[in-house]
Amino acid sequence: MESVVQEKGTLSIHTENIFPIIKKFLYSDHEIFLRELVSNAVDASQKIKQLSSYGEYNGELGELKVTVKLDKEAKTITVSDRGIGMTADEIKKYINQIAFSGAAEFVEQYKDKAGSEKGIIGHFGLGFYSAYMVAEKVEIITRSYKDDAEAVRWECDGSTEFELGPAERSDRGSDVVLHIAPDSEEFLSEFRIREILEKYGKFLPIEIEFEDKVINNPTPIWTKNPADLQDEDYLAFYKELHPYSEDPLFWIHLNVDYPFNLTGVLYFPKLKNDFQMQREKIQLYSRQVFITDEVKDIVPDFLQLLHGVIDSPDIPLNVSRSYLQADGNVKKINGYITRKVADKLADIFKNDREGFEKKFDDIGLFVKYGTISDDKFYDKAKDFCLLKNTEGKYFTFAEYQEAIKENQTDKNGTQIWLYTNDSKKQDSFINSARKRSYDVLYLDTVIDPHFINTLEQKLEKVNIKRVDADTVDKLIEKEFALESVLSTDQQEKAKGLFEGLMESKSATVQVEAMPADELPVVITFPEFMRRMTDMQATSGQRSMFGDMPMMYTVSVNANHPLTAKILETADETQQKALAKQAYDLALLSQGMLSGQALTTFIQRTVSTL
Amino acid sequence: MESVVQEKGTLSIHTENIFPIIKKFLYSDHEIFLRELVSNAVDASQKIKQLSSYGEYNGELGELKVTVKLDKEAKTITVSDRGIGMTADEIKKYINQIAFSGAAEFVEQYKDKAGSEKGIIGHFGLGFYSAYMVAEKVEIITRSYKDDAEAVRWECDGSTEFELGPAERSDRGSDVVLHIAPDSEEFLSEFRIREILEKYGKFLPIEIEFEDKVINNPTPIWTKNPADLQDEDYLAFYKELHPYSEDPLFWIHLNVDYPFNLTGVLYFPKLKNDFQMQREKIQLYSRQVFITDEVKDIVPDFLQLLHGVIDSPDIPLNVSRSYLQADGNVKKINGYITRKVADKLADIFKNDREGFEKKFDDIGLFVKYGTISDDKFYDKAKDFCLLKNTEGKYFTFAEYQEAIKENQTDKNGTQIWLYTNDSKKQDSFINSARKRSYDVLYLDTVIDPHFINTLEQKLEKVNIKRVDADTVDKLIEKEFALESVLSTDQQEKAKGLFEGLMESKSATVQVEAMPADELPVVITFPEFMRRMTDMQATSGQRSMFGDMPMMYTVSVNANHPLTAKILETADETQQKALAKQAYDLALLSQGMLSGQALTTFIQRTVSTL
Repeated sequence: MESVVQEKGTLSIHTENIFPIIKKFLYSDHEIFLRELVSNAVDASQKIKQLSSYGEYNGELGELKVTVKLDKEAKTITVSDRGIGMTADEIKKYINQIAFSGAAEFVEQYKDKAGSEKGIIGHFGLGFYSAYMVAEKVEIITRSYKDDAEAVRWECDGSTEFELGPAERSDRGSDVVLHIAPDSEEFLSEFRIREILEKYGKFLPIEIEFEDKVINNPTPIWTKNPADLQDEDYLAFYKELHPYSEDPLFWIHLNVDYPFNLTGVLYFPKLKNDFQMQREKIQLYSRQVFITDEVKDIVPDFLQLLHGVIDSPDIPLNVSRSYLQADGNVKKINGYITRKVADKLADIFKNDREGFEKKFDDIGLFVKYGTISDDKFYDKAKDFCLLKNTEGKYFTFAEYQEAIKENQTDKNGTQIWLYTNDSKKQDSFINSARKRSYDVLYLDTVIDPHFINTLEQKLEKVNIKRVDADTVDKLIEKEFALESVLSTDQQEKAKGLFEGLMESKSATVQVEAMPADELPVVITFPEFMRRMTDMQATSGQRSMFGDMPMMYTVSVNANHPLTAKILETADETQQKALAKQAYDLALLSQGMLSGQALTTFIQRTVSTL
Repeated sequence: MESVVQEKGTLSIHTENIFPIIKKFLYSDHEIFLRELVSNAVDASQKIKQLSSYGEYNGELGELKVTVKLDKEAKTITVSDRGIGMTADEIKKYINQIAFSGAAEFVEQYKDKAGSEKGIIGHFGLGFYSAYMVAEKVEIITRSYKDDAEAVRWECDGSTEFELGPAERSDRGSDVVLHIAPDSEEFLSEFRIREILEKYGKFLPIEIEFEDKVINNPTPIWTKNPADLQDEDYLAFYKELHPYSEDPLFWIHLNVDYPFNLTGVLYFPKLKNDFQMQREKIQLYSRQVFITDEVKDIVPDFLQLLHGVIDSPDIPLNVSRSYLQADGNVKKINGYITRKVADKLADIFKNDREGFEKKFDDIGLFVKYGTISDDKFYDKAKDFCLLKNTEGKYFTFAEYQEAIKENQTDKNGTQIWLYTNDSKKQDSFINSARKRSYDVLYLDTVIDPHFINTLEQKLEKVNIKRVDADTVDKLIEKEFALESVLSTDQQEKAKGLFEGLMESKSATVQVEAMPADELPVVITFPEFMRRMTDMQATSGQRSMFGDMPMMYTVSVNANHPLTAKILETADETQQKALAKQAYDLALLSQGMLSGQALTTFIQRTVSTL
């Protein structure tokens, strides 16, 4: 090997045209420079470890720590490693020729040796040049691991001219010194540097030291063998990721080599109902380098409510969304994660039904979300997805059908499931149903309207109705029917009287034989019309149902003593007032009395006290 | 000029390394290739026009149309122009040397000639190479405008090898022929091509023809002199931008040359209350090329509810957000737009108060938003921002202070403004206030809580209270006060009786001398506590006020006959029932009776009928 001499040269590319492009287009976040340089240093350190393990390097490995130093006075940031270093020839090859990927060549050279692909992060070359997004000058002082290597110093101010010459450096490895440009002085801050290092480097595989502290955990649990890990390890790692969160309910360790490479740990958090807020909690890594927390196209939509980490070198980075969605590996990863999640849930359900039920209020949201959005998930989940009734009991779909078939099958042989989406608002209707020993389910989360649709599609002869969709005897029509104590004439008279009170065209009045202990007037929302209106509200569209108000039915209870009393009241004003009061109470029970009408009702009621 | 000969050569750059980078990183949307190629063609056409106007080209200009052709069979897309064309030397310079910006050199060369900067869109060179995002081979057949120029054919399959040779082409201009790669066949669709052309090229300055139809309007109104335009022109252009929208209320023509170049038209749409939906309606152009509809950092936040077009070559494109926010031009553009909007509004207010009032329900949202978020805008808007009361009358701040100062100044000299954020829910409280001839404002939009804070900060001695913040006589405390007909003993007894009914710890009971025609019991929400709870709800945080329920006051009306009646009732059960009914009616009036409690109230009331 020849002695290095001082020389000048020109980069073999139109650097003056390429630099602005690297600066402007390559990364939209300037902070990425530090990720790239630290990744390169980690890379160089990994390589020396590999060479040592192949017996191609026989010197001491020593401590392979990467160090980041900030010198505010000199306005420099220095990244140092004790990796393989570079000879003058290698600098010419890997640094002076932009976009020549050293890593690619290294991998090529050692591709037949087991495990060699592991741990090569960067694409040395272009990543290095991202330094010029923030630096006006960059120096490299490096010495190769090779026995007779001499230290080299390289320097370039971002123009096309570089300088290369001998240097002093006793030790193997590289220092990359960034002279920060005036417009990037925001990076001359301990806080900012630490922030960037912690964002991208928290789990890099080589120790990263900044201000005498190691900022990373080089062996995060997803790199370990599940058999070597205890619950405490998973919980501790969760705290590391989400310091302020409650403990997760359980977790899944992902580990697959073929047909794609993916490791990771996904946690099931306690979910609140406002699940929009909870997203972006899965972090995507590529060989322990943080890439993004937007995993929209990689993880199935319904599992984005999970927390945790996914690490895969097989997910194409920095490419367009439409490309990602079409990518075969990404589809397979989606399928794999879905399957693992379903299997885990089935497992807990089978081995600890009681524990599963306790957790179901928290995980129900995404189990249901999964059944709606993924047929394959439904097929597995149908045996463990639970329904909860207003008494707090849980049932699988099959158990529920068995439990209610006696009492809730209508005269056509269809099972009628009843539910409430607001047990406070629908309290009087739930009371009525319970009096008939009907079971009422809670289906009150944001996705339950879709879940109901899915259930009706998948289950045969099941019809699901909100508990206020009709008067209690009509919800589930049986062979027998109550008789009216009023004559047909009286019924007509009552109907006319109440119709006279209606101001809204959306109301239909009917007189019905109900039990005497029901309310004198009951307002119900026919299931089909209500679903149409609900759907429109959810979609935010103003469609043909746009300004159409909710249709409702006013059922006058023919068998309530008050109805008879109203009909018997001779004074017309008094009769009307009594009927109005009964109607107002029905409106009130459905939360439909407000504004001037409510004020009038209250004043009228006060005056009767 | 020498005759062109067939030759082979190598691009002067490591193309094999640069191509993957252009493909992967340069644009995340592959469809951009068509924007770039059509922009280049428009560019070439603009240049010949300029050369002609400088007298450097004396041939006919003819029709300068750019044509896009799709040949599904041959799997090609061809972009043709009749612009300046290229000689073999120019191809070598502008095409063979990647990232050599021809446009930059052209501008440099003609920079002293007036208007020469106008109309140069592209950065020929890199933009051209985006063709390889979708093409496996690209041909250029071109002939320069120069008198003795010969036609040239260039071809390259995306490797480092290109071919250059003579060609047949009688006419000045260029054809760029893309041989679409198998993975990009989605672009071999008329629908897709038309979609992309319409997205990016709708207002390009040279006619673009596709399938025998011109797809663009080369002279959109923002490029014209406002003096030459009628209202109809603005309305017609609005329909062009937003075919399905209602007519806008009014508009502002932006036109500034110094210190930055910006043209455009902003429209004030009819706003609905759900203003989250309405964003992304301003389109950003750079020299008539569509860039984006995300103008988050360019247009002040509160003006993003406007619709329309902004065209500025001075907005740096494709750079990071933090950079944009810090950019001096962007800041100035922000300020300019804000000022123009304020001036326009002030103008309409001054010249057509009645018309302004009619529009205010639609524009109030962003006028208020502006006063909250921008002090400079507040200073202008304070004279035209309107307040609307429950009788539908409008006031400026000064007018309102004048109108209510007599009746609504409290004993400390502070003006108390009353408002409702839900006139239906607060109906009984509005009634009470109106009985006192107090004025009540509508402040019921999503941003009014913030608007209220701004008003209180800006206006001296003004305190704004929701109409149910206290019982009517305490909302605005005067020197005189009503006397209680109950003795102190009786008051204590009434207090104890009602306290016995409270299940909630958030309720405070007090017995108060109110007018006899007020309700027997009134529930109010002390203003300060309510604001704290509201703020927390808006921010979505669970803070120290997290699970703390809303504090409220239960005021028993000492002067209502029912209170006396309750105290006189000897039977304790009956007394309690009466008090409970009065309390329930107060809860009802505030929408606080629900679930089991409401069912019980309804059943109890039915039984009294």
